[in-house]
Amino acid sequence: MAETKEAVKHVVLAKFKEDLTTEKVEEIINGYAGLVSLIEPMKDFHWGTDVSIENLHQGFTHVFVSTFESTEGIAEYISHPVHVEFANKFLQLLDKILVIDYKPTTVNLS
Amino acid sequence: MAETKEAVKHVVLAKFKEDLTTEKVEEIINGYAGLVSLIEPMKDFHWGTDVSIENLHQGFTHVFVSTFESTEGIAEYISHPVHVEFANKFLQLLDKILVIDYKPTTVNLS
Repeated sequence: MAETKEAVKHVVLAKFKEDLTTEKVEEIINGYAGLVSLIEPMKDFHWGTDVSIENLHQGFTHVFVSTFESTEGIAEYISHPVHVEFANKFLQLLDKILVIDYKPTTVNLS
Repeated sequence: MAETKEAVKHVVLAKFKEDLTTEKVEEIINGYAGLVSLIEPMKDFHWGTDVSIENLHQGFTHVFVSTFESTEGIAEYISHPVHVEFANKFLQLLDKILVIDYKPTTVNLS
């Protein structure tokens, strides 16, 4: 089981408050995406809404995945003033959040 | 905000029971990876253990991410006899599970 590359994925599951407008949600997602150009160790960002059919998503409505070169990069990101300011705004819009980081690993079964 | 490609990510967060051996966990992960060659709509699989530092991972120990061409492909996968058999074994090893699917979307801020 080898790591595919030197990268760490930072996965955020969020449940937005139900009374938010579409515009407000879009604005905060654009703000999240904008962090890529403001915080050096953050290399990539993508997101999506829950489309699962198993009802095992525990109410989470959105997935946000960003990529870093290392766990040290994530630590730098978390404490970066621009992220702290963003996170304060973001958290105010959420009912709940889950954050998990992992190093993508593939399985060689051959 | 455009979808980057026609793909759906199937994200499984798992918390394995604490009394399992490393070998048992590795065996079930190999079994999970093996589904890619047995279930046609499943296109890719990778995984990793939690390395987060924010303590917002709610006890989940592992992330499993597989890729499908469509939500219909995920539905076919879920009901596929090979997946059903695997899932029965997998769930017996877990304290808890969360499953969320999403279509990766990028944000164009330019």
